[in-house]
Amino acid sequence: MQHIRLAIIGFGNVGQGLASILVDHSSRYTQDFDVRFIITAVTDALKGGAMDPNGLDPAALLSSVEKTGTLSEMPNFRPSWDVAEMIHSAPCDAVVELSFTNLQTGEPATGYLTEAIRCGKHVVTSNKGPIALHYDHLTALAAEHGVQIGVEGTVMSGTPAIRLGRKILAAAGIQRIQGIFNGTTNYILTKMEAGAAYLEALREAQALGYAEADPTGDVEGFDAAAKVAILARLLFGTPLPLNQVNRTGITALTPADIQEAASAGQVWKLIGALEMIDGKLSASVRPQRLPLAHPLARVSGATNAVTYTTQLLDEVTLIGPGAGRLATGYAIIEDLLSIYSR
Amino acid sequence: MQHIRLAIIGFGNVGQGLASILVDHSSRYTQDFDVRFIITAVTDALKGGAMDPNGLDPAALLSSVEKTGTLSEMPNFRPSWDVAEMIHSAPCDAVVELSFTNLQTGEPATGYLTEAIRCGKHVVTSNKGPIALHYDHLTALAAEHGVQIGVEGTVMSGTPAIRLGRKILAAAGIQRIQGIFNGTTNYILTKMEAGAAYLEALREAQALGYAEADPTGDVEGFDAAAKVAILARLLFGTPLPLNQVNRTGITALTPADIQEAASAGQVWKLIGALEMIDGKLSASVRPQRLPLAHPLARVSGATNAVTYTTQLLDEVTLIGPGAGRLATGYAIIEDLLSIYSR
Repeated sequence: MQHIRLAIIGFGNVGQGLASILVDHSSRYTQDFDVRFIITAVTDALKGGAMDPNGLDPAALLSSVEKTGTLSEMPNFRPSWDVAEMIHSAPCDAVVELSFTNLQTGEPATGYLTEAIRCGKHVVTSNKGPIALHYDHLTALAAEHGVQIGVEGTVMSGTPAIRLGRKILAAAGIQRIQGIFNGTTNYILTKMEAGAAYLEALREAQALGYAEADPTGDVEGFDAAAKVAILARLLFGTPLPLNQVNRTGITALTPADIQEAASAGQVWKLIGALEMIDGKLSASVRPQRLPLAHPLARVSGATNAVTYTTQLLDEVTLIGPGAGRLATGYAIIEDLLSIYSR
Repeated sequence: MQHIRLAIIGFGNVGQGLASILVDHSSRYTQDFDVRFIITAVTDALKGGAMDPNGLDPAALLSSVEKTGTLSEMPNFRPSWDVAEMIHSAPCDAVVELSFTNLQTGEPATGYLTEAIRCGKHVVTSNKGPIALHYDHLTALAAEHGVQIGVEGTVMSGTPAIRLGRKILAAAGIQRIQGIFNGTTNYILTKMEAGAAYLEALREAQALGYAEADPTGDVEGFDAAAKVAILARLLFGTPLPLNQVNRTGITALTPADIQEAASAGQVWKLIGALEMIDGKLSASVRPQRLPLAHPLARVSGATNAVTYTTQLLDEVTLIGPGAGRLATGYAIIEDLLSIYSR
């Protein structure tokens, strides 16, 4: 059996989701995949750090955060633990990078990933910033150090959009990608379809925790644009600066627009799209009116979906969660299993 | 570069689709995957056989069939070529088994696969019979001889339903599978939704070549039941005799049923379903009324789809073609790439 020791950077929603998966599914993973995941170190900017070479109990990590908001109940607790120091000192095989996303610079996450790769660790992340902005740099470095980079969680959380496109459909010849890559805006549009005005739907999304206090990143399409850039690089092999994604958000859509579409048997969706036209990659994020027969038209609420138009299979559509503790935590598991056991 | 020599049993729709893919995509496969597929031998019960250790030109194979209905224009043409003899004498690395499907015995395909495996060849098939009925026997034999079995094309043609469930979602804990696994019946039901009576819709499906002259296998759910049995074995690890699939076809559905569902905001679909309940696998194929919000409700025409309900990702749905020359030919390519290059 393979023991895979993990050092985790960032213990927010996704990190806790991963810990929770390990509480409930570790014995199944051992049985089915002959691997044992062991969290040897965790550091979080707000919650502090903890380390145990023999493994931190994931249930204890969750319980400490629930009770104290920090990792203070864990062995070798440190109120703060520098990430670079953790990477260098924690006994681990893979570094799981789950710090906050920055779409301007990709930092500090890119620096963390770089450090981990230089230390010869595999890295797995669900963080869009470094992958949208610095993927080529990171893969070159990873190749140099003989390690792998797992990125499934950066698009559609654990719904395997990247793996499907990259591993399974690549030989079918992907010509076009269209997707609903942002659950918050899809939730808002679904509410507007049901009669709500934009602001009312936004408030509801904020109350449910789908939208942040400043919703700009979602509603103006920046989040979806980052995912489009990631898919451009991973599935079309084309690095795409974020400002080359033709981007329009959903804030200008009115109830009248929604109703007009509905009476024409159509529905508005915020579609991220990539298409190779005459050897040039066209990339956009913008609201589009889809006929109800389109496979993305009926994807409602916070769900995400992607349609790959291919030469040999025509349209193949994958629909699944685009966010969530467990769903994104699962992306990490998928990547680790892919690196280690398959 | 890896040369993969293929011997093909059966040169009907799927075999010709595979040849056609090799005409158009071989250079891309060489470039992207560093493999070269070479058809060294073909035998077909009606079209005869051909062989060339250096490779038969796939375009010439297609042209010979188009012009003469046989392989008579090919080098070393044989009006008939015994399959076992071909397997033993043709220089090949993998045998592609595309003969006709028999859901009672799985023969003669199972015999062909057995012979090929015993000769130390990898085998790839899109034939439901042997996989639904004799998978355990075949995998045991393959393990003994150190070869692999590719089966992606047996369910939803090249739409990677099996690979998605088996490789990518396995760790998410699949609890339930629901799918539209038969395109013919889905086409008929879609036409009935649009107002046609059952027989009218069936005639149309027959005129388009979706349904056979004797449509029993499709409309009574036998084809879908075979796919359910295959998924039971591959994704739940449970061998399932076909007669243990609780099966009802679509022939009893009336326009009144369809309209009643429509007025309740629902739609009838022929759903193949598998669910583990209290450690026992329940399997069925039957018409079900789905609410329009269900991810399978809007899958129309001859398209297929599957929804995996998982512990960690909730529902993940894959929609794509369920049949077709190229789509099924692509399943063979997927399996071969998976065996050889990934």
